Amino acid sequence: MRTVTWQDGVLRLIDQRCLPFELAFVDCTTHAEVAAAIHNMTVRGAPAIGAAAAFGMALAAQQSAARNATELLADLNAAAEQLCAARPTAVNLAWAVEQQLTCAQQAGPEPNSVQTALLAKAQAIADADVAANRSIGQLGAPLIHDGATVLHHCNTGALATVDYGTALGVVRAAHEAGRRFHVLLDETRPRLQGSRLSAWELEQLGVSYEILPDAAAAYFMRRGEVDLVLVGADRIAANGDVANKIGTYSLAVLAAAHALPFYSVAPLSTVDLRCATGDDIPIEERDAAEVLAPHGQAIAPAHFRARNPAFDITPARYLAGIITEIGIARAPFTESLARFVEQAASGNTAPPQDP
Amino acid sequence: MRTVTWQDGVLRLIDQRCLPFELAFVDCTTHAEVAAAIHNMTVRGAPAIGAAAAFGMALAAQQSAARNATELLADLNAAAEQLCAARPTAVNLAWAVEQQLTCAQQAGPEPNSVQTALLAKAQAIADADVAANRSIGQLGAPLIHDGATVLHHCNTGALATVDYGTALGVVRAAHEAGRRFHVLLDETRPRLQGSRLSAWELEQLGVSYEILPDAAAAYFMRRGEVDLVLVGADRIAANGDVANKIGTYSLAVLAAAHALPFYSVAPLSTVDLRCATGDDIPIEERDAAEVLAPHGQAIAPAHFRARNPAFDITPARYLAGIITEIGIARAPFTESLARFVEQAASGNTAPPQDP
Repeated sequence: MRTVTWQDGVLRLIDQRCLPFELAFVDCTTHAEVAAAIHNMTVRGAPAIGAAAAFGMALAAQQSAARNATELLADLNAAAEQLCAARPTAVNLAWAVEQQLTCAQQAGPEPNSVQTALLAKAQAIADADVAANRSIGQLGAPLIHDGATVLHHCNTGALATVDYGTALGVVRAAHEAGRRFHVLLDETRPRLQGSRLSAWELEQLGVSYEILPDAAAAYFMRRGEVDLVLVGADRIAANGDVANKIGTYSLAVLAAAHALPFYSVAPLSTVDLRCATGDDIPIEERDAAEVLAPHGQAIAPAHFRARNPAFDITPARYLAGIITEIGIARAPFTESLARFVEQAASGNTAPPQDP
Repeated sequence: MRTVTWQDGVLRLIDQRCLPFELAFVDCTTHAEVAAAIHNMTVRGAPAIGAAAAFGMALAAQQSAARNATELLADLNAAAEQLCAARPTAVNLAWAVEQQLTCAQQAGPEPNSVQTALLAKAQAIADADVAANRSIGQLGAPLIHDGATVLHHCNTGALATVDYGTALGVVRAAHEAGRRFHVLLDETRPRLQGSRLSAWELEQLGVSYEILPDAAAAYFMRRGEVDLVLVGADRIAANGDVANKIGTYSLAVLAAAHALPFYSVAPLSTVDLRCATGDDIPIEERDAAEVLAPHGQAIAPAHFRARNPAFDITPARYLAGIITEIGIARAPFTESLARFVEQAASGNTAPPQDP
């Protein structure tokens, strides 16, 4: 089952707000509904919202009453703007929308042919995400040795992608390869993606895991109970700085202090060469209510003051590597990422030599 | 209003599980009820549970049907064991109970005189805690400059003590001295003492604050929005290693990585010279349900697996100092703490020269 699927003209999303108690779905028939689902985190995870936005563009083309290519492109540009505004940090959303705008320009001039092309392209983006994740898993799995303990933040599994996952895809591939290991899951406040989503996925896969409060990660590191840290990415700058779920930077500093390897795991669609460094990446700050009322249950009065930055930036110097679908990029990242992106764009996806 | 008060033969505790929504009280008339209130965190905070246990010993003396000093001491020893077993990490509990056992031995042989002495001693311990905290506040307040931002973990305010607080006592003293500054409050999962208790206290004091998810602390440090980290302590080893609420060690490592001063704030009753280092301090691991069901609201099924260490150890090398009621202890702590404890025991509580 995919997180993001197209069925009979409708975009169907797993409603991630209901997990782990209920596997429910939300159907979107307009791009505005898709934008809302991305903003309210019905669907979340950088690759998943990228695919959802690609289908959102296909829906926008279907809805459009445009009589010619010019009108249709105007409608699509408006839809693109609305979708991109839903969440600013993950570049996959903007990347997928941009892919669709290019596709629309190339597919014209008939509105019908644009509609057909955008739907096919959305399917291709979704399929490519699954393929990339399986490749990432194969490339990353050797990093997880028998007996190891992996520390993981947020959710980067099938739910965060179209299917299979990025960092948890590496975990899954190692598990499927028969290795025995343990995963410590940061619960990941405020939205608790670790305890709600990652734990649910590892329960189903049969991977040994334990949830821990985010602030306990250092405790386990100091006791020698962590061997490796794997996180995802919402946007990777040209120099290798990684924007990811709030708390990632904290883990990176702590991993360095305990001499533990720290990897970001993401498809190359997450690399944004237009951002020279992490300073160029916008950080979304979400509603304080997510902090004051986890899962809708108030722990403090609504007038209490809280901060809720949804992401942080991890400088590239903390990374042992970035695990992508064509290989593990190593420092200096400015060179390795540019080379990877170029190779992927040229269709040469044979994994480069990992030095 | 004190967190721990004695009224007409009854120990009255603020029920900290109900805050910030309701200011409720729990009355204890037996030492077993006191032990239960400590274990279930009706009363929490190292100094507060120390005072509560002291009154618990007074209640045990009152309940006892002993006909002579020997029988009474046997009853008191049993009560001491039960109280100390309620929570293992904070030494203030064991310290207060030990003070009461010594008091009982000296006050005998008449059971009546022991009862009277234990109640008076409990009151003295409670009063001394408030006095120590006010002194701590005066000594620590100069560390908070106008315009500073203090990062704080858990709750160390009036609620964590008999009154006034330790780390938040420093904040309060700086506020009362007219300084303007801001406090970032770690929410402190899993029990959320930061968002529930510390925010409630700072709301009442009128101190500027914001709650943040624990994992966001590093984000604010990296942005230069933190000047100083203040935490409490549940037990301090002879070498200055500090046991405190889970997440403290994480903050200490992060503070060091950002070159920020990190202080532990505690009365000298928290120093346990019998523990040579933090390795000698027992770490309580509490029920996984606290992680899986914050504030009683399940975020994941009860069979999901979680870890819940309640405390961690911060090695002394991370500390800029330990703020006590007779001065700020500095490295080397093995010397400064021994000197402070000796001075306090000799009744010479004039603050030593702070080098």
